[in-house]
Amino acid sequence: ITHRNKPVKKQTLLFIQALLNSYSIVFFSQDNVLAVLLLAVSFFDPLAGCAGLFSACFSLALLKLSGHRADTIQSGLYSFNSILLGIGFGSFYHFNAAFCLWLVVATILTVMLTVSLTTILAKRGLPALSLPFVIVFWMVLLAANGYAQLHLLPKESYLLNELSTVEHTNQYQLFTALNTIPLPFYVKLFFRAVSAILFQDSVFAGIVISVGVFIHSRISFSLLALGFTSACLLNAVVHVYPDGLGHYHLGVNFMMTSMALGGFFAVPSLRSYLLGIAIIPLAYLLTGAFTVLLDAWHLPILSLPFCIIVSGILYFLNLRQQPGKLQLVAYQNYSPEANLYQYLNGQERLHNLGYLNLSLPFMGSWMVSQGYEGGITHKAEWGQALDFVITNEDGQTYKYTGEVPADFYCYNKPVLACADGVVETVVNHIDDNPIGEVNTRENWGNTIVINHAPGLYSKVSHLKQGSAKVKPGDMVKRGDILALCGNSGRSPEPHLHFQMQATPYVGSKTMAYPFAYYLQDTG
Amino acid sequence: ITHRNKPVKKQTLLFIQALLNSYSIVFFSQDNVLAVLLLAVSFFDPLAGCAGLFSACFSLALLKLSGHRADTIQSGLYSFNSILLGIGFGSFYHFNAAFCLWLVVATILTVMLTVSLTTILAKRGLPALSLPFVIVFWMVLLAANGYAQLHLLPKESYLLNELSTVEHTNQYQLFTALNTIPLPFYVKLFFRAVSAILFQDSVFAGIVISVGVFIHSRISFSLLALGFTSACLLNAVVHVYPDGLGHYHLGVNFMMTSMALGGFFAVPSLRSYLLGIAIIPLAYLLTGAFTVLLDAWHLPILSLPFCIIVSGILYFLNLRQQPGKLQLVAYQNYSPEANLYQYLNGQERLHNLGYLNLSLPFMGSWMVSQGYEGGITHKAEWGQALDFVITNEDGQTYKYTGEVPADFYCYNKPVLACADGVVETVVNHIDDNPIGEVNTRENWGNTIVINHAPGLYSKVSHLKQGSAKVKPGDMVKRGDILALCGNSGRSPEPHLHFQMQATPYVGSKTMAYPFAYYLQDTG
Amino acid sequence: ITHRNKPVKKQTLLFIQALLNSYSIVFFSQDNVLAVLLLAVSFFDPLAGCAGLFSACFSLALLKLSGHRADTIQSGLYSFNSILLGIGFGSFYHFNAAFCLWLVVATILTVMLTVSLTTILAKRGLPALSLPFVIVFWMVLLAANGYAQLHLLPKESYLLNELSTVEHTNQYQLFTALNTIPLPFYVKLFFRAVSAILFQDSVFAGIVISVGVFIHSRISFSLLALGFTSACLLNAVVHVYPDGLGHYHLGVNFMMTSMALGGFFAVPSLRSYLLGIAIIPLAYLLTGAFTVLLDAWHLPILSLPFCIIVSGILYFLNLRQQPGKLQLVAYQNYSPEANLYQYLNGQERLHNLGYLNLSLPFMGSWMVSQGYEGGITHKAEWGQALDFVITNEDGQTYKYTGEVPADFYCYNKPVLACADGVVETVVNHIDDNPIGEVNTRENWGNTIVINHAPGLYSKVSHLKQGSAKVKPGDMVKRGDILALCGNSGRSPEPHLHFQMQATPYVGSKTMAYPFAYYLQDTG
Repeated sequence: ITHRNKPVKKQTLLFIQALLNSYSIVFFSQDNVLAVLLLAVSFFDPLAGCAGLFSACFSLALLKLSGHRADTIQSGLYSFNSILLGIGFGSFYHFNAAFCLWLVVATILTVMLTVSLTTILAKRGLPALSLPFVIVFWMVLLAANGYAQLHLLPKESYLLNELSTVEHTNQYQLFTALNTIPLPFYVKLFFRAVSAILFQDSVFAGIVISVGVFIHSRISFSLLALGFTSACLLNAVVHVYPDGLGHYHLGVNFMMTSMALGGFFAVPSLRSYLLGIAIIPLAYLLTGAFTVLLDAWHLPILSLPFCIIVSGILYFLNLRQQPGKLQLVAYQNYSPEANLYQYLNGQERLHNLGYLNLSLPFMGSWMVSQGYEGGITHKAEWGQALDFVITNEDGQTYKYTGEVPADFYCYNKPVLACADGVVETVVNHIDDNPIGEVNTRENWGNTIVINHAPGLYSKVSHLKQGSAKVKPGDMVKRGDILALCGNSGRSPEPHLHFQMQATPYVGSKTMAYPFAYYLQDTG
Repeated sequence: ITHRNKPVKKQTLLFIQALLNSYSIVFFSQDNVLAVLLLAVSFFDPLAGCAGLFSACFSLALLKLSGHRADTIQSGLYSFNSILLGIGFGSFYHFNAAFCLWLVVATILTVMLTVSLTTILAKRGLPALSLPFVIVFWMVLLAANGYAQLHLLPKESYLLNELSTVEHTNQYQLFTALNTIPLPFYVKLFFRAVSAILFQDSVFAGIVISVGVFIHSRISFSLLALGFTSACLLNAVVHVYPDGLGHYHLGVNFMMTSMALGGFFAVPSLRSYLLGIAIIPLAYLLTGAFTVLLDAWHLPILSLPFCIIVSGILYFLNLRQQPGKLQLVAYQNYSPEANLYQYLNGQERLHNLGYLNLSLPFMGSWMVSQGYEGGITHKAEWGQALDFVITNEDGQTYKYTGEVPADFYCYNKPVLACADGVVETVVNHIDDNPIGEVNTRENWGNTIVINHAPGLYSKVSHLKQGSAKVKPGDMVKRGDILALCGNSGRSPEPHLHFQMQATPYVGSKTMAYPFAYYLQDTG
Repeated sequence: ITHRNKPVKKQTLLFIQALLNSYSIVFFSQDNVLAVLLLAVSFFDPLAGCAGLFSACFSLALLKLSGHRADTIQSGLYSFNSILLGIGFGSFYHFNAAFCLWLVVATILTVMLTVSLTTILAKRGLPALSLPFVIVFWMVLLAANGYAQLHLLPKESYLLNELSTVEHTNQYQLFTALNTIPLPFYVKLFFRAVSAILFQDSVFAGIVISVGVFIHSRISFSLLALGFTSACLLNAVVHVYPDGLGHYHLGVNFMMTSMALGGFFAVPSLRSYLLGIAIIPLAYLLTGAFTVLLDAWHLPILSLPFCIIVSGILYFLNLRQQPGKLQLVAYQNYSPEANLYQYLNGQERLHNLGYLNLSLPFMGSWMVSQGYEGGITHKAEWGQALDFVITNEDGQTYKYTGEVPADFYCYNKPVLACADGVVETVVNHIDDNPIGEVNTRENWGNTIVINHAPGLYSKVSHLKQGSAKVKPGDMVKRGDILALCGNSGRSPEPHLHFQMQATPYVGSKTMAYPFAYYLQDTG
């Protein structure tokens, strides 16, 4: 469970996974197939593809070096804005020495802004979305147009005049040749709009991405189609854009908004689909307003309306006193289907109870040493568990030499009940391990399981031998001391393992639970 | 005390009251006479009046449907920006199909922004004022001028060129004919400035509104006059505006600012009146600066300077370590006179003590089920009381079937002393009711009254039979456990009734106390 | 220890010190020599010098009158933006009646914005820097260019066209004559860039300021040179500015940024110097972008890039989970050398321990009545101590008449261990003083010293006679009750004295400790 001596191969695999996540999370997914398809599509414009890949790798390295949270880096949440920036850079500018310099500088700015905005907005329960990319790319566009000469050579950018003809490289023309294939206008427009999310205007690219999205989630795909249809229909009726809505705004500011709100941030339902339609006129108004606002500097609005509408509506819905039937996703599974399944499952299992509001199973401030799906032992069926340790300000878990359990800050500290319940199981007899050794025979060590509700149990493991203060059948209240933190079982150094589960057994699988959500917020 | 089965008539009355509050709160009042006069004046331009009324009703319905706090909705705090938007819409644009569509869209945006900004700013003790209206109306104006065709037909707007002649409907001309009546120039300017707050330029409208304000509060009216005089005098001396200050800025950005800071947010006093004068040069500077800033898009600044100055000064004054003689209003009575009375009354009664900093009378997180003036039983003399319950995440107060007191989350939970004091009265013998029944004979049920200071008592009621841990004469410290939450007296289901009062009796009237202020902040 | 009856002379000295601090803090220093040199240089343009001095004095008076924290006012943190505003005003505009009026108005705005922004940003661990000056000066420039006639007569401003020839007064020409002295171009550019920080373009002014900075800190001076060299080198290579980088941006947005991040906010080290270089390309990008952005209003960008880069990087670095080798300064000594010494000293003394995370030595909310270096008795060797009292909402420390210790809110309240440790010394026999009298013979009164780590002790003093709950040799845990707050020793009224020290004796010198940092944040 310690991260020391992690072999190079493991590190490489983790890096590749982080890279893939950075791609797939652009579509609110962690699906590797979608990630690979997006990576491939980005290379339809080779310079854009390279720049995007470089920015992603550089960002991951920078984040690692500067000592940010490993599990958040791993999720791609801090690096997908850099991919958008790199692809945007490659789509807007020709390659030269200045291209390299300013791409590096802009990527650094994007990483800093992503980490900062993500943290600030997370405190309000909001995502940063592509806002960091938008802001940094504006900076680049502004600076490139000024007296300060960045020596960036602009391509003829289709974003600035949306529907103009665009000069492309040969390879790119190969793919866009498919734009001439005999498909109905609106079908071609749909795929071109999907491709716009990666700054392209290509039916073929759109088809590839659509396949990836469809594999990842039928709900997401249906919402893309819903957003597309609603936007086109409204324009047909109201003629907001007399020449038709541009494919970039269609893809980025209409369809993505429907997809984000209709099935990712809200639990999929009839109401969430209605929300996906209701945001279309809002998107029209804001797209129009921001276009005029930024025209003072000839800046494209990029995905600003998408960011504003998604954040704004989430904030508004978060402030409701009674959530009613339009539920927001509490614990994010990065898949509309999984979110829906978890919600329905939770509804059924907990019927009248709703989610219990869990407390942390300890006093004071601990660190998550191994988060959901993040580490080595918390995999697959046991993926929704948390390991906690106490660290000093340098991030160290022990004082002195760390050679005995008592050197570890968390050792001997009280472990608490995370909610009211009845004690189900107590294991209390297993020896604590010397530091560095693990007891794989009695994997969980001393463990207490508490029943909080029918089908809802919490488990704390690796407790200190003989420290249990409760016995099976005891009623416990939230915050009651259960035992002391120890080093028994598969535990090379003292830490607390915590998980929620649906069955009362010590070896039960974990259960996704919105607990993590609250932790993330305070991070 | 339960809100179930509320009759339709009751609901209608509550809705009408909420509607009137939305109008009167534009002038920081909850006075129904003023509300009716404002509603009437808004119809001097019938389209503006209809649009304002529609936006208000639509906002109230939207807020109710989306499940926001009933008491805040009722106060009009979430809906008055929609009225301004509606009136602005009707004053700027001709009626057509597009008018309806974008009015609905803009109203939705306004409601979302109002709820969000109100919450964000309330955490810093600041009001949102008319900022949501200003921002959304800018969006509409921007979008209407762009390539995206909203198909809104602009009237000749007097706001954009302030003093130009304006085309009006017949009815409107009838009223504005009164502009020609032989009154001194500055008197007519005063009334025109007052009418500008509802987007008009009419002496008659100004007279009607002024009468309403005068009825509501002599202090408010005197501050409008003070702001008017100061602004005109300064311009006469410094010639900031060589042709004279426009009536719109005079009304909205000078007189309203003086009124808000001089008597509503600050306790009325000589110093608060001086503050009402001191903000005039600030208003000149900011009005000038924002006009140039927004001229890049030919946007009117609307009430932006008013919003910035009021919020900025409140924030600055809030940060003082020693409030000194310029006191801010802690608990808002929506009337300068009432605020002053409460302050003087509190000063006298509590002399050297100042306000006690009250704690909540329980541990953990409870909900206010019935707020100040908000419900059925907390009326008139008992209007300043709070009922608390514990809810789960779905807003339900009980688990299982809710048929026995023990099913309710708050039942049996400890009730605490909200501050240090001496126990005055203990009632401990009354039976707990079965769910759904009330004991109107012993209205308050088991009750404890504590004396915190001469003339300052707190009372907790509906406690569990036999649960009192204190007896008369006991010294209690803030946070000491007094008893357990129960279901005795006029209580159909377990909850905690809490109030502050000036006399030691169980049946005492309630007393307004800034306690609510802290609660609101954390809302 | 009470502040009553402070003699006029004392008050005058405090005021002069506050004034000097306001000047020196522009260069992140509290050095009086530097302050006097900056004050002198500001008078090279007499109108600018006078306006700066007036704004500083007016701000200090305004802050005192409005009841803000005395120790923060004293540090100059709330008033240096006003100096920049005054100097900017005097450098941009000719003197007339309007000059006086709008300088006063703008200074009030600057003070309000400084206090507000400082507080808001401090909650995120960030400084406000010169942002308030930048914003208010923009407001003045905007308003002066609009229809609203401020009657300000602009000088030919060198800021707007950076390198144009500037008309100056006679005295100023005397000094700028030195610009023609035969020094290498880049040496002259360096000094001109330094002088730009006070809105000048004078080699001589730059030399004087440089001497002051060199006296204050060799590290700061070396970072100015590093920033200058890096910026010039990068421009020589990349030709961002074909005609060379202007001296204003060089000084304000490049050299100051290097100085702030390379040695003041980060602990000086090889890595911090590399950071000082790494920000140069970022500064190029942002300077270019903001110039184009603000060109829509012909506004100069002033020090905006500096503010954004410093705040942005600090926020990003603050969010790291593992600080690594680039350490930020936890407790600010206003000198890179002192910050470095403290850090190395702490490193050595606490070796593996890192900083202990101290808790406050009491429960609930107390006030700091005398902060670090802020008062009368906490001077020189005992400068890093804190006095705590409890106040009511009016800032009063006592109820009733305050004639007996028991009237004071903090009297008899428990005093806690700020961290785990072993009790070293207990003094428990000294009588409590009557109110207003002090016992200078037994200066510290009843006192407990705790050993937390080799070379790290905490001391609490003026405890109540006979209240000690611990004896030498006792192990204590963080939060354990040590004794009760009293009024023994040199204590005219009950309060708690708390300090960290490196030796176990009751009379030990204090030690700077990042404790204060956390307190500031919550202030």
